[in-house]
Amino acid sequence: MSGSLTIVGLGPGDVDRTTPIVAQVLREATDLVGYATYLNRVPLGEHDQHRHASDNRFELDRARHALQLASEGRNVVVVSGGDPGVFAMAAAVFEAVATGEPRWRTLPIRVEPGVTAMLAAAAEVGAPLGGDFCAISLSDNLKSWTTITRRLEAAARGDFVIALYNPASKSRPHQLGEAFALLRQWKAPGTVVVFVHAAGSKDAAVHVTTLEDADSHVADMRTLVLVGAASTRVLSREGTTPWVYTPRSEEVAGCARS
Amino acid sequence: MSGSLTIVGLGPGDVDRTTPIVAQVLREATDLVGYATYLNRVPLGEHDQHRHASDNRFELDRARHALQLASEGRNVVVVSGGDPGVFAMAAAVFEAVATGEPRWRTLPIRVEPGVTAMLAAAAEVGAPLGGDFCAISLSDNLKSWTTITRRLEAAARGDFVIALYNPASKSRPHQLGEAFALLRQWKAPGTVVVFVHAAGSKDAAVHVTTLEDADSHVADMRTLVLVGAASTRVLSREGTTPWVYTPRSEEVAGCARS
Repeated sequence: MSGSLTIVGLGPGDVDRTTPIVAQVLREATDLVGYATYLNRVPLGEHDQHRHASDNRFELDRARHALQLASEGRNVVVVSGGDPGVFAMAAAVFEAVATGEPRWRTLPIRVEPGVTAMLAAAAEVGAPLGGDFCAISLSDNLKSWTTITRRLEAAARGDFVIALYNPASKSRPHQLGEAFALLRQWKAPGTVVVFVHAAGSKDAAVHVTTLEDADSHVADMRTLVLVGAASTRVLSREGTTPWVYTPRSEEVAGCARS
Repeated sequence: MSGSLTIVGLGPGDVDRTTPIVAQVLREATDLVGYATYLNRVPLGEHDQHRHASDNRFELDRARHALQLASEGRNVVVVSGGDPGVFAMAAAVFEAVATGEPRWRTLPIRVEPGVTAMLAAAAEVGAPLGGDFCAISLSDNLKSWTTITRRLEAAARGDFVIALYNPASKSRPHQLGEAFALLRQWKAPGTVVVFVHAAGSKDAAVHVTTLEDADSHVADMRTLVLVGAASTRVLSREGTTPWVYTPRSEEVAGCARS
């Protein structure tokens, strides 16, 4: 009896944005491991499945639990929202393998990608990630605030479009405001800022503003914040939220700034 | 007769990584517009469809053509590989709207995200994007090499994991070698470098090396290159390519470096 471990991402919001291969892997699993919010999004499988729900902390413990089940011969799927490799469970599983039982290294482990939140958020508002971009998690649960500020500064100096994951939670209400304050030192007041709530779902909501006017309290745990590059532009539409896009061509961006 | 325009991403490689909603949009389209390589990946629709294939240049012309068709009442889908918002067609469409006919602004335009190449590449090798990361296109067709080097330096100084899109083509054989040379000025020789060819397809191939040893000639047009952060680690396996992952926790990374 040989078990397996597959780490999957459900994609954003609705089930019709989960890839067919992930849907198949989920149907065939004997055990699903993950944060309860994500497990609740998984349709019931073809046969009895054990669902091991947890809260969204203790990622390493959850990873070890999944590896243990796989080593006992179960076909285990670790479930993340979005993409499992972006601020989610995949890194925790490999860290658990590296620091865990030697036999875990011989398990068949596989990662199945998904649409990560920043892609869904960008799609809601147009094409803000059209140029070079970076993704930074504002959570300082796993890294220092010093590291985060260093990266915000580097991202600003490089004029990347910046996707801010985990901008706020009940236990971390101040990070986003501090991040905006830092970014205002290096980026123009008129830099485009977009808040996207619940991207890729029926509850999706978009708020387009500027760095100068951005109010960090607009963000909650389900919000993805995008901070534009110098060339990112707003295209107004009558009666609805504007489009936001970052031209790929520098010539066009240059004209827009002049 | 009111037309529409939807910009979709097929995801990487195989059709089972295209989201169901994109598959549905493709089936319902009257007209598909895109680079021939991507159009050839789209299964035949339920009814006759006009397929407007082009080469992979002249993105703005292609965008204008799609907008014109939509304004004539067609249900047009613009097809990209991966995600349409990442170094692909979505930005070109909004740029064409901004600079084009006023009536194009009133068209129902929608973007449907997909799994972009770096997520598929990361999944092939483990979880290299586990920490903060950035995406840089090495193509200088649309931006200056000065902008690219500025971003490479910023990404290195911020210790981001770096995903390099468009690392090489026949007309641009030297960019990746120059990028490695630049990164060697700022990043340790042992920094993990991963070449992933044809991520997410049956032809997928992974090559794990270090910045010191990285040979730019390994890359072709279908390659995605990942350059690790200081904390990115290699987890060897017997008889196969190693896993690569970037721990989310700094404490663990700190231990590994000591």
